[in-house]
Amino acid sequence: MPGAAPARALPAREEADPAMTSASDRPHSYAAAGVDLDAREATAARFGAIAQRTHGPRVLTPPGAFAGLFRLGAGYRDPVIVGTTDGVGTKVLLHAALGTLRLAGHDAVHNNVNDLITTGAEPLFFLDYIATNALPQEARVEVVEGIAQACDALGIALLGGETADMPDLYRAGDFDLAGFAVGVVERDALIDGSTIAAGDALIALPSNGLMTNGYSLVRAIWGLGKGRGLAHDRAALETRYAELGGTLGEALVAAHPSFWEALRPLRPRLHGIAHITGGGIPGNLPRILPAALGARLDRGSWTAPPLFELIRRTGNVPEREMWRTFNMGVGAIVAVAAADAGAVLAALPGAWRIGEAVARAADEPAVRGLEGDR
Amino acid sequence: MPGAAPARALPAREEADPAMTSASDRPHSYAAAGVDLDAREATAARFGAIAQRTHGPRVLTPPGAFAGLFRLGAGYRDPVIVGTTDGVGTKVLLHAALGTLRLAGHDAVHNNVNDLITTGAEPLFFLDYIATNALPQEARVEVVEGIAQACDALGIALLGGETADMPDLYRAGDFDLAGFAVGVVERDALIDGSTIAAGDALIALPSNGLMTNGYSLVRAIWGLGKGRGLAHDRAALETRYAELGGTLGEALVAAHPSFWEALRPLRPRLHGIAHITGGGIPGNLPRILPAALGARLDRGSWTAPPLFELIRRTGNVPEREMWRTFNMGVGAIVAVAAADAGAVLAALPGAWRIGEAVARAADEPAVRGLEGDR
Repeated sequence: MPGAAPARALPAREEADPAMTSASDRPHSYAAAGVDLDAREATAARFGAIAQRTHGPRVLTPPGAFAGLFRLGAGYRDPVIVGTTDGVGTKVLLHAALGTLRLAGHDAVHNNVNDLITTGAEPLFFLDYIATNALPQEARVEVVEGIAQACDALGIALLGGETADMPDLYRAGDFDLAGFAVGVVERDALIDGSTIAAGDALIALPSNGLMTNGYSLVRAIWGLGKGRGLAHDRAALETRYAELGGTLGEALVAAHPSFWEALRPLRPRLHGIAHITGGGIPGNLPRILPAALGARLDRGSWTAPPLFELIRRTGNVPEREMWRTFNMGVGAIVAVAAADAGAVLAALPGAWRIGEAVARAADEPAVRGLEGDR
Repeated sequence: MPGAAPARALPAREEADPAMTSASDRPHSYAAAGVDLDAREATAARFGAIAQRTHGPRVLTPPGAFAGLFRLGAGYRDPVIVGTTDGVGTKVLLHAALGTLRLAGHDAVHNNVNDLITTGAEPLFFLDYIATNALPQEARVEVVEGIAQACDALGIALLGGETADMPDLYRAGDFDLAGFAVGVVERDALIDGSTIAAGDALIALPSNGLMTNGYSLVRAIWGLGKGRGLAHDRAALETRYAELGGTLGEALVAAHPSFWEALRPLRPRLHGIAHITGGGIPGNLPRILPAALGARLDRGSWTAPPLFELIRRTGNVPEREMWRTFNMGVGAIVAVAAADAGAVLAALPGAWRIGEAVARAADEPAVRGLEGDR
């Protein structure tokens, strides 16, 4: 931590480059540049206390360490380490406008952990990367609080993080948030879609909104985060829509849900797990399908939540764009043997049978039954 | 990858949110927003080929996977997984101005790996996070090429990454670059400074410039990255200084060096490793010292490279600020038993004995011998 004593309470959290907060051209010292080192130090101490709450006995990081330490231990036969990285995208602009910074933290954790668990892995720890220009200290704490809440709920450790002050790269008050998750899986328990067979049932888990994808399209439609001022953005976000049963903003900032708790006990039965992120169902479901298989989906098996129809109508978005941008109410799709479908559905409240895996020729599309043939 | 076939050649690299590249307010589809999906797809394929070069037999990621898989294997007794995250800071603005994008990739890898290896860990893999507004596809490839070059040289895998297109959050053409590194160390081989004793020798490894810290201060001094235009910035960066033996830009964009190759074989002898990043020697060396110890440094044991004196003079930066912002020529400091100092020095070309660990009272500073008492 910049120019301050090395008593960083959050091991492995780097408070990047004190000098980076120098915003003026004249004064060439921190103090003259208006950097409140005391505030940064106090924030770092709070980060430490927050992260500590997520640390079980497997976290071995000593105070001041340059990296986070997590004891894997000897209990694995042939462990495979799984790593993911992903950001929250420009959804951060909406969180900033509405002050829902904790939800931004949930987004970062869940988005990464959902990717991670598609492999069958158990998530172990998370690290965050926050880059900003002059995000208030209190707001930074809110973001990290949200991250820690989400980690805590999942039983994973917030092992470290980086807060980078980057004047000139961001507008004052803006921030970017990305994360990094690590997990472990026994090699013989890997889930990679290779065991999916024709006839397997495809079971959909519901999303609760856009999760973290499609926000720049939505922002374009409503003119959000385009420099029209906070008043404009808030007015648009605070508009109530009957079909949403609330405001646009409430619907848009809903946190990316976690599928770990629901899928964890089912892993031995799952042949494949697709996380429906950027690219929608057609962009993500084929990622788990063997080359000779496709997915035949039953478009009548669910109704996309009203938020998607509101977006389509307001933005006059072509149907095909909708399906390739948004999850359309489907947060994840798992493949299971047809004989297991009933038991898996019973264990997943809100889930439904969305279709099945079918043989397909090389010239056939990987996903059939979505747009265009309702 | 957005709206494109799921044939992503780089496993676990997410091409975030196609819709995010919608920059206009009117058109609400990718095509109308001018997003070149073909170009993105071609870039993703190139990323895949580039990353593949770093993949040994331990990388198990199947095509299309949502996460990267690295086989740890059964060869460890009590493995501890080590994780770090760090960015390149606003040094990216200088790399962008000079087109030294590969060096930005080296920076991201070396900055993280140096943090990682302070624990005694062996680095295993790296993931990158690139966030941008309209960085040209060719430039993205350069950044990832640099990352892969650095990974390859270190023998680690580029396991995945995320390229996030984030209009409105960045100025067109700007980008941010962060990374995540994971390594492993046997629990009984952890290096954490706890074995440092009074009388231990402190040995400095030379830096080759600012590494990745202090750039916003330097940019303030020369007015770089402040929106004065590329011509202004380039003219300043292309100014030759006799004492540098070259241009200011050449000196400033030198890649963060890696200390892994040099320190790897010495690990059994090292009591502590400090990576001299933001906060300089006074901010980082104490991080590895036990509470009852301090460092007595010999300021006469080295001369800070001319770049630092040029910065101090041009910016009229107070001496104390210099030491707390910049590494002043010291990239890392290791602590070893006095009896091992000769052998360790012999194995580290360019290194020197910078001081020693000494007993200290609670009211004494952790580091003595730097600014103010030359």
